[in-house]
Amino acid sequence: MTTHMDAEEFRRNGHAVIDWIADYWASLERRPVLSLDQPGAVAGRLPSAAPERGEDFDRILADLDAVVMPGVTHWQHPGFFGYFPANVSGPSVLGDLVSSGLGVQGMLWATGPACTEVETVMLDWLADLLDLPARFRSSGTGGGVIQDSASSATLVATLAALHRASKGRWRGDGVEGRYTVYTSTQGHSSIEKAARIAGIGDGNVRPVEVDDRTLAMDPAALRSMLEADIAAGARPALVVATIGTTSTTAVDPIPAIGAICREYGVWLHVDAAYAGASAVCPELRWTHAGLEYADSYCFDPHKWLLTGFDCDAFWVADRAELVEALTVLPEYLRNAASESGAVLDYRDWQVPLGRRFRALKLWFVLRWYGAEGLREHIRGGVEMAAGFAGRVRADDRFEVVAPHPFSLVCFRLRDADGVDGDAASAALLARVNAGGRIYLTHTRVRGAYALRLAVGAPQTRASHVEEAWRLISAEATAVLAG
Amino acid sequence: MTTHMDAEEFRRNGHAVIDWIADYWASLERRPVLSLDQPGAVAGRLPSAAPERGEDFDRILADLDAVVMPGVTHWQHPGFFGYFPANVSGPSVLGDLVSSGLGVQGMLWATGPACTEVETVMLDWLADLLDLPARFRSSGTGGGVIQDSASSATLVATLAALHRASKGRWRGDGVEGRYTVYTSTQGHSSIEKAARIAGIGDGNVRPVEVDDRTLAMDPAALRSMLEADIAAGARPALVVATIGTTSTTAVDPIPAIGAICREYGVWLHVDAAYAGASAVCPELRWTHAGLEYADSYCFDPHKWLLTGFDCDAFWVADRAELVEALTVLPEYLRNAASESGAVLDYRDWQVPLGRRFRALKLWFVLRWYGAEGLREHIRGGVEMAAGFAGRVRADDRFEVVAPHPFSLVCFRLRDADGVDGDAASAALLARVNAGGRIYLTHTRVRGAYALRLAVGAPQTRASHVEEAWRLISAEATAVLAG
Ligand SMILES: Cc1ncc(COP(=O)(O)O)c(C=O)c1O
Ligand SMILES: Cc1ncc(COP(=O)(O)O)c(C=O)c1O
Repeated sequence: MTTHMDAEEFRRNGHAVIDWIADYWASLERRPVLSLDQPGAVAGRLPSAAPERGEDFDRILADLDAVVMPGVTHWQHPGFFGYFPANVSGPSVLGDLVSSGLGVQGMLWATGPACTEVETVMLDWLADLLDLPARFRSSGTGGGVIQDSASSATLVATLAALHRASKGRWRGDGVEGRYTVYTSTQGHSSIEKAARIAGIGDGNVRPVEVDDRTLAMDPAALRSMLEADIAAGARPALVVATIGTTSTTAVDPIPAIGAICREYGVWLHVDAAYAGASAVCPELRWTHAGLEYADSYCFDPHKWLLTGFDCDAFWVADRAELVEALTVLPEYLRNAASESGAVLDYRDWQVPLGRRFRALKLWFVLRWYGAEGLREHIRGGVEMAAGFAGRVRADDRFEVVAPHPFSLVCFRLRDADGVDGDAASAALLARVNAGGRIYLTHTRVRGAYALRLAVGAPQTRASHVEEAWRLISAEATAVLAG
Repeated sequence: MTTHMDAEEFRRNGHAVIDWIADYWASLERRPVLSLDQPGAVAGRLPSAAPERGEDFDRILADLDAVVMPGVTHWQHPGFFGYFPANVSGPSVLGDLVSSGLGVQGMLWATGPACTEVETVMLDWLADLLDLPARFRSSGTGGGVIQDSASSATLVATLAALHRASKGRWRGDGVEGRYTVYTSTQGHSSIEKAARIAGIGDGNVRPVEVDDRTLAMDPAALRSMLEADIAAGARPALVVATIGTTSTTAVDPIPAIGAICREYGVWLHVDAAYAGASAVCPELRWTHAGLEYADSYCFDPHKWLLTGFDCDAFWVADRAELVEALTVLPEYLRNAASESGAVLDYRDWQVPLGRRFRALKLWFVLRWYGAEGLREHIRGGVEMAAGFAGRVRADDRFEVVAPHPFSLVCFRLRDADGVDGDAASAALLARVNAGGRIYLTHTRVRGAYALRLAVGAPQTRASHVEEAWRLISAEATAVLAG
């Protein structure tokens, strides 16, 4: 007989793991934010094969500390300012734990009514919190769904766009002729990847010029590209506008872009992967103006809304169009509820078939924090970033290289007499990250090397951002001294 | 200031959730396996908007029982025999809990060395447990990765196959000309969906005839289809062979299919989503003969290996080919470790960019159960299914309609004087499922309606399968009495 973990063992071990996490979170600040392991170190601490006989849980937990932890990059560390945040929080962890325990696979409404309906309602709650257009709500023609990531959301939008642009022929016949996709030069790499996956070819992703100051898409450039492509016989399928680009959080002008998309009948997907969360605050909602033009929209609660990876919230204005693009119905999935038309089957809204009950973590987060708590989280991040930008601006050696409406600040060491700003900034980043207290990443803005400081880890307070500035400033002195 | 859940609250609430899961598992047998909720019932129990102010955790947990639980289909119930199992286990839940608490996003080696390396090693351990060909190991040219699902694994294989078949032109130019994909008439719907997503068109998925008795792919039929398509100017890109088809667990003859794929230079992907787990038992490994011909292979530990959804294990024989097909490299992801070539960046092995530390649950499962425990789990399922098939065979009213090498039995009420086997079997299924003690699903085999009984929920014992047979037999009497 297989020896499962019985109820009492599960309780004991489960409490131990909960305590382990509480202790881990409490220890974060004392840990170096980056792993010091060299490539191969973690693998080298693991045996070369699974054990023949089962082992005690205590040994596994002990090895977690000894074998795994030295190789962990601490994304929840208060000094983690790299990439965009990948937030997690107590309620999110516990909601996801319930999901694991239930082990529901919600591919169809019938295989987990609650898995489907809680998700629909949570996406309506979020639409409400962000004040999204009515047509994205499930009460209208649209609705929301959880995707694993913004990358998958962009892919799904690309597929629906191909379905529309081909007048339905794409499903059976595939990609015929040359379709084109448009995004600004600042668009995320997942757009290129989606076009490649969808068989459009990443060579047919057209990079639209941006305004030099704001780094936001230039609608006039979009129009001329569309016209030139149509004249050359291509079929524009999709425009992806970004609210909060990855490099600098630039905000594309959705009203102007949307009007052009409508004129040419092109699907408009709005990617607000990181910055979308900020729309819970009315004062930041200007970034979402024009969203009523969008055919689809997404943002990642797993980035900046205290919900653990993976959780991308994706909405469409016309759910029938999406389902038509993606549905495949074998006999063994037929069931009365689906045939009644009274339910949503989320397998038809995504790439995979199976699905986890991810709406639970969102439900726990939205209830624990409330709208008010989420707004405070966002506002705290925006304020800390603004404070940091103020410090940078007040120091002549530095320049802030892009607007910072959210919680990301891009900055660099200026070019100066005897100072190559690019090389100096890269050296600064390397020194700062080597210290183990904070972690930043880099980008290029108008060709120039720049550092990115993204505030958003749940434990980050103003004092951590202050400390970051002190470290950066001191290391700059060292770099500039040569 | 945002009110986060502090360490003491997290401990207390976390222990409560662990206890809730232990109690839930202990209560499973007493619950009706299917939800009795009508469409809209769960949504109707939820408020129409998120709360303005945060709420107590106790209230959230109370609502879990009141609002959500009546709408749950209990996939872990010992009487759940539907679809294929979606296993979970104590060690899996706890491994995943650690992953949630760490909140690591492992898109690159550099963003989580342990997240990457534990995954590589776990996939090597699994390759070892299943005795997969050497070229799938990371020590050779290949390697494994965790995908969310077998559907995504098939999609990724399709993309690599297009890359190869187009000699690399597909990346930039997209799908040009007509590519074709081959799978048996019993292949999973995800193959059609992958072909659609990849822009091949599901009309170009060619259903290969099967042997009438075994329902396994007929290699001669594959060869003639390939030849006819090539003669007609199509470009065969991919063959998907199945070990354990969804409908009946038929096993395609990989050696013969593999030789044909090699002859025509076509990518061979082997989909063992459900049945792959059984290869941990040497006596069931005959199903995997010929795997050295495969370019890629996958199975779902989340189906039958006690690891919670989502966890698909996917291997390729040539990782360089896969990475070349999928990589996209923007500036902000450049880093020294990637450029050194000494590490794997798993974002280039999958559709999404971000990734969760899913290898932890696999590590916990493999260590807790050991190879021995996993074999016992599989053997138990196979024996219980064989016992059930024996019961069905011994009853003249029934027929077993397909071989059952694993833990799925397909059966139906026979056509007889005054008995339409299809209608009677459908009526039987409806009656059995209405009872609330067990849940089965259906399929069609050679056109005839059949019931599927899949053993595999972790709590299922021989007594539950015995009870299932008693209920089915009694309901059959009622159905046949008219
Ligand atoms: C604007 C934008 N879009 C998409 C993504 C991809 O996110 P994911 O990992 O959820 O696919 C990112 C990630 O940083 C992003 O910044
Ligand atoms: C043979 C086969 N392939 C693929 C799948 C799809 O599985 P997933 O939900 O992991 O995509 C299934 C699911 O039952 C299957 O039986």
